[in-house]
Amino acid sequence: MKYSIGIDIGGTNTVIGLADSEGKVKRKEKFSTCGFDNAEQYLEFLKEKILSFISGVDVFDSVLGVGIGAPNGNYYRGTVEHAPNLKYKGIIQVKQILADKLSKAGCKLQVTVTNDANAAAIGEMIYGKAKDVKDFIMITLGTGVGSGIVVNGKLVYGYTGFAGEVGHTVIEPEGRLCNCGRRGCVERYASATGIVITMKEMLEHTKVPSLLRDTGSEQITSRSIYDAAVKGDKLALECFDYTAKRLALGIANAAEITSPQKIYLFGGLSKSGDYLLKPLKKYTEQYLFSIFRDTIDIELSGLNEEDAAVLGAAALCY
Amino acid sequence: MKYSIGIDIGGTNTVIGLADSEGKVKRKEKFSTCGFDNAEQYLEFLKEKILSFISGVDVFDSVLGVGIGAPNGNYYRGTVEHAPNLKYKGIIQVKQILADKLSKAGCKLQVTVTNDANAAAIGEMIYGKAKDVKDFIMITLGTGVGSGIVVNGKLVYGYTGFAGEVGHTVIEPEGRLCNCGRRGCVERYASATGIVITMKEMLEHTKVPSLLRDTGSEQITSRSIYDAAVKGDKLALECFDYTAKRLALGIANAAEITSPQKIYLFGGLSKSGDYLLKPLKKYTEQYLFSIFRDTIDIELSGLNEEDAAVLGAAALCY
Repeated sequence: MKYSIGIDIGGTNTVIGLADSEGKVKRKEKFSTCGFDNAEQYLEFLKEKILSFISGVDVFDSVLGVGIGAPNGNYYRGTVEHAPNLKYKGIIQVKQILADKLSKAGCKLQVTVTNDANAAAIGEMIYGKAKDVKDFIMITLGTGVGSGIVVNGKLVYGYTGFAGEVGHTVIEPEGRLCNCGRRGCVERYASATGIVITMKEMLEHTKVPSLLRDTGSEQITSRSIYDAAVKGDKLALECFDYTAKRLALGIANAAEITSPQKIYLFGGLSKSGDYLLKPLKKYTEQYLFSIFRDTIDIELSGLNEEDAAVLGAAALCY
Repeated sequence: MKYSIGIDIGGTNTVIGLADSEGKVKRKEKFSTCGFDNAEQYLEFLKEKILSFISGVDVFDSVLGVGIGAPNGNYYRGTVEHAPNLKYKGIIQVKQILADKLSKAGCKLQVTVTNDANAAAIGEMIYGKAKDVKDFIMITLGTGVGSGIVVNGKLVYGYTGFAGEVGHTVIEPEGRLCNCGRRGCVERYASATGIVITMKEMLEHTKVPSLLRDTGSEQITSRSIYDAAVKGDKLALECFDYTAKRLALGIANAAEITSPQKIYLFGGLSKSGDYLLKPLKKYTEQYLFSIFRDTIDIELSGLNEEDAAVLGAAALCY
């Protein structure tokens, strides 16, 4: 059996997994991405984890490589560059540094880097719902909003290798200030962070009763908004409606560029299910240019959240 | 020598040309798209023109086919569907009707249909500046705003065949009402029509002196705004600045999806040259997500306007 290491670097957590060629994750571990002083220490820890994963299962000779999905991961250069939601800033030479460290430890492995959302899209293509879908967009709703775009069966990297940033398209030119320094990005409304901002604004600017009025401002999370929505909380439901509406405009704009057959939602906020999905479908149809109406299905990803990213990253090695 | 017929259907004019395989347009004719009662009469006239072009040069046996670039032209179905700027509404079976008419006239020719902007992009790829460019976006600034998107050397058609509608992405959710029924489309600001709306609004809502204040409202065109700008008219220059700013946001959003190396501008309004191009470059850089800054060149198309579309359409036959 051939194995590969898949690593999903998120703004909050990093997940490392050992996947076999049939898509089974044999071993998996999660740790905080932010718990290190700098990128060097983080990569050193990552190297140790890789070595432990490889040696622990005694498959040293049959490991194909290391695939990494990371925010602003660049496939061409093997770097992570200026990721707004990552603690480690600037250009990080992930591929080179990690390959060197592994090599010095006597372990020569190919390291491949791409955007975390691209990795998820590859995971969906190989192991998920997108096996027979040639044109789709994977939207990851986590700390930020990422996306991986597949056109005619191939991931779109573009000239820079950074293609597919639906989360940083602007839907409100004078809107909320984004971590990226600009205003009105989709991410600022449709991420786990964005929905919390919306909820706090709604609590502040309206008098509508809400279960969340008794919650301390710091305790409001996408999860607590979801829990309130499940209990029928009117303001929480409005918050999901607004979030869906903003995301819908970003999705409609992107769909007018590449005309996907499917949109897959992935990541923390997508677990809200119909609370997000139902208004999202409605608003996306409303926002779409007429020739695209009724041509796009929006669905939840077919993969277990963490496995998808790990498998997508692992699939980069093939 | 092999020939093909290239037809560019615009909202205002239709251009038909006979192109040889080296990209020379041997004969060309232009007529009003709107001068017919219905699509049937228009296509009948088009058939007659095609037959005249073919018979006139005695190359009947070596004509490869007919390529057509049209607004909302669908490559997969050979149709023109619900084009907002076209007089003829609904779904027009251009390929089927025209091929039937030609066949009945004893002329069996393959008819291929695509978006007019896609045809221009193909023209740029084969005969223009994009010969060695793998990732680019062609933006056509005419009565409307069209676009043809090339990713990794291939035109993006998407699931529906309608991909590449940058002109109908929304940059201002509560903005100007567009012909397509939605609000705030790029097209409503950055087309020849859009810049005239902007100028009229500026004349109405400001007291700034302008050469165009003496022009009757009906006489204001993108050309007269350009002429005023050349004479240093402050309001006309502001009008170009605003138009560029709106277009820049649409381009930046599209660029964040496919990460092009080049943006080519094509069509009537692009003839304004630096009056549009200079502010457009500035604002696009400002609007771009940081990882895309300084990676995209915005240039005017390398092709003569009408030849590019005709050649692009003709190239569909190869």
